[in-house]
Amino acid sequence: MERWNFGANREVMIAPSGTTVRGVLKKIMENLDKDDPSRPTVPLGHGDPSPFPCFRTTVLAEDAIVDAVRSAEFNSYPPTMLGHLPARRAIADYLSHDLPYTLTPDDVFLTMGCAQAIEVTIRVLACLGANILLPRPCFPSYGAHASSNNLEVRYFDLIPEKGWEVDIESIEALADENTGAMVIINPGNPCGSVYTHQQLKKAETARKLGILVVADEVYHHLTFGTNPFVPMGVFGSIVPVLTLGSISKRWLVPGWRLGWLVTSDPNGILRKTKVISLFLLDLISHPPTFIQGAVPHILEKTGDDFFSKIIDILREAAHICYDRIMEIPCITCPNKPVGSMFVMVKLNPSLLEDIIDDMDFCLKLAKEDSVIVLPGVALGMKNWLRITFAVEPSALEDGLGRIKAFCQRHAKKH
Amino acid sequence: MERWNFGANREVMIAPSGTTVRGVLKKIMENLDKDDPSRPTVPLGHGDPSPFPCFRTTVLAEDAIVDAVRSAEFNSYPPTMLGHLPARRAIADYLSHDLPYTLTPDDVFLTMGCAQAIEVTIRVLACLGANILLPRPCFPSYGAHASSNNLEVRYFDLIPEKGWEVDIESIEALADENTGAMVIINPGNPCGSVYTHQQLKKAETARKLGILVVADEVYHHLTFGTNPFVPMGVFGSIVPVLTLGSISKRWLVPGWRLGWLVTSDPNGILRKTKVISLFLLDLISHPPTFIQGAVPHILEKTGDDFFSKIIDILREAAHICYDRIMEIPCITCPNKPVGSMFVMVKLNPSLLEDIIDDMDFCLKLAKEDSVIVLPGVALGMKNWLRITFAVEPSALEDGLGRIKAFCQRHAKKH
Repeated sequence: MERWNFGANREVMIAPSGTTVRGVLKKIMENLDKDDPSRPTVPLGHGDPSPFPCFRTTVLAEDAIVDAVRSAEFNSYPPTMLGHLPARRAIADYLSHDLPYTLTPDDVFLTMGCAQAIEVTIRVLACLGANILLPRPCFPSYGAHASSNNLEVRYFDLIPEKGWEVDIESIEALADENTGAMVIINPGNPCGSVYTHQQLKKAETARKLGILVVADEVYHHLTFGTNPFVPMGVFGSIVPVLTLGSISKRWLVPGWRLGWLVTSDPNGILRKTKVISLFLLDLISHPPTFIQGAVPHILEKTGDDFFSKIIDILREAAHICYDRIMEIPCITCPNKPVGSMFVMVKLNPSLLEDIIDDMDFCLKLAKEDSVIVLPGVALGMKNWLRITFAVEPSALEDGLGRIKAFCQRHAKKH
Repeated sequence: MERWNFGANREVMIAPSGTTVRGVLKKIMENLDKDDPSRPTVPLGHGDPSPFPCFRTTVLAEDAIVDAVRSAEFNSYPPTMLGHLPARRAIADYLSHDLPYTLTPDDVFLTMGCAQAIEVTIRVLACLGANILLPRPCFPSYGAHASSNNLEVRYFDLIPEKGWEVDIESIEALADENTGAMVIINPGNPCGSVYTHQQLKKAETARKLGILVVADEVYHHLTFGTNPFVPMGVFGSIVPVLTLGSISKRWLVPGWRLGWLVTSDPNGILRKTKVISLFLLDLISHPPTFIQGAVPHILEKTGDDFFSKIIDILREAAHICYDRIMEIPCITCPNKPVGSMFVMVKLNPSLLEDIIDDMDFCLKLAKEDSVIVLPGVALGMKNWLRITFAVEPSALEDGLGRIKAFCQRHAKKH
């Protein structure tokens, strides 16, 4: 018997794969029936429409990358811990369009997609010994990073009947003197909601509680209902806001991994409290330099026609999705989605013969009908489902039709 | 007085910037005399030759990136937690050329440059509750990540008089039953050394101690003396090896952030001991998908003429560097560099009038002569200096001339 010092027999796990969207979807996709190649899988699980032709990014963005590579000016290590100055300036200018004050490059940190912005935010809060308030349902990376950094998490509810509005009373009840921040995801993932100015203004509560607001705006400007996108940074003079975002969703390039972490904090509270210095992480990996080099052109030159086209497709897709779900008795949808790429719907397993819960539903749906949907349990809401409608319309119709047929087959006979 | 819960008044620091090459060089560069624009700074601190025209990467590598972007097939999230399969296969094949066995794509994890491979390795070892043996001098990221993960570090010496050979006796004395791994950097950073097959074979000690070998081969094949590059994986059937590498140095594109972490472990010890599962980190950010998409073309098609040209320039630069340093009395060089991009030289401050130590030397050299050199203290060796010779030859001559003049000006008068 060999002896090695490094055996992981203790069942140590750094990040159990069940705690992220990617991990849960992997489990469900393993349940696909690989013997049925005639019926292509319909991926309604991920928020990644980029493989579909109608969601191809703009050629202008591709050009910007190509030009940066060809210039050979961006082969070196990224110049500073914050990122390339023109990229940071371009992001500051881009976000300032929607704000009553002007951001500077010093407010901007470049990250590997929004995912790394989440990671850094959680590490900093953990370092401060704080606890954090997360919405329920919530994009699960927050909880997963908190867990791996021993950061305490407390959940407040989003209210489905009120357009997934934040339950402000529960926030006040949850917060204490160690609470460092609350997270707001707007436009909503997984809810497809878009908060009004009035709803966002309730973040003033954070001021009262002495906590900062983490505004996850990775789906910024992806709105197609009556509510326009309002960045949380609009309230930055009331309460310091950490704005998390990326080009991943609006430009349909999640694989490019270009994101940001921005301090929307015109009063400089984060500097005064020295929190800002914690973000100067010397050890994190930065986005490739040539992608940083391409950012100014991408942000400054992309035309409204590209954005409008995508919004039109998403609006139509949300419409199809809502209508088709209305036809399925065991699934109810509290709100028609008006933003992001998702809708959160309620599953009633008691109307089904042999489906125990949302996870069981998703596993069997994958196996029998090759449709991938995310179970609500991954988002903190058992017996809900998150469905993405950001796929090619024909695939969406196909997938929702299969879900309907699946539910009919499994419906309890009266 | 405002009250905020999140003040960092406790002097919390996640990664003090003094603990990485980037952090130390930043401090030194802040000392540059900005009033003297006539005299361009000579950067002999970083291992990043890519800004110099003679070190431009091959057009073939640029083409591979451009083609991947233009295809629009790589805009999505990376497909798995390991990385794009063709990229992993290409890396397995590329590294197998130099091994007595064949690696498979399952042995390969793609990382954000070698930096993230180091980060992941350290996190996994920390997770196992192990301690780690590092060489002295050492590339400081290992120690910095260990510190931020509460991983205990023990240093063994490299012996300058023996071509920076590992002091094997000290390894045996340092290791105990909690030791998880030892790190070998070859070709050497900061030492410019290249270990022979015979020297590497001493890693059999790791087998005896029951620890794995972390082989940092980011400078693989950058050798220009009589010793050819031998990968540590050659001994993978004796002791499991984690091979860390990237395209950053051999292709001169550190800004592209494409690296790997490879298990060179034909007996599958890392699988048997379940250590491998720890590397399936669900939470880490992956290299942009289109860079992953470009990897097969880059690794399979780059011609030997490109590599030979770079080796010839580095050999000549190493030669210039060694000769010029020989002319400076207060600096001695134990070994002519035969690999990587650096030489490690000993400073004798007692021959200088007003220089206390290596850090003082570097700060004053930056201020007075606009030459950047890394102080040995950053690498665990006080009163040594790391000088990179991987710059344009004319800049190298200029920089070394300024160092000589600086030393003459500060020399003690007899």
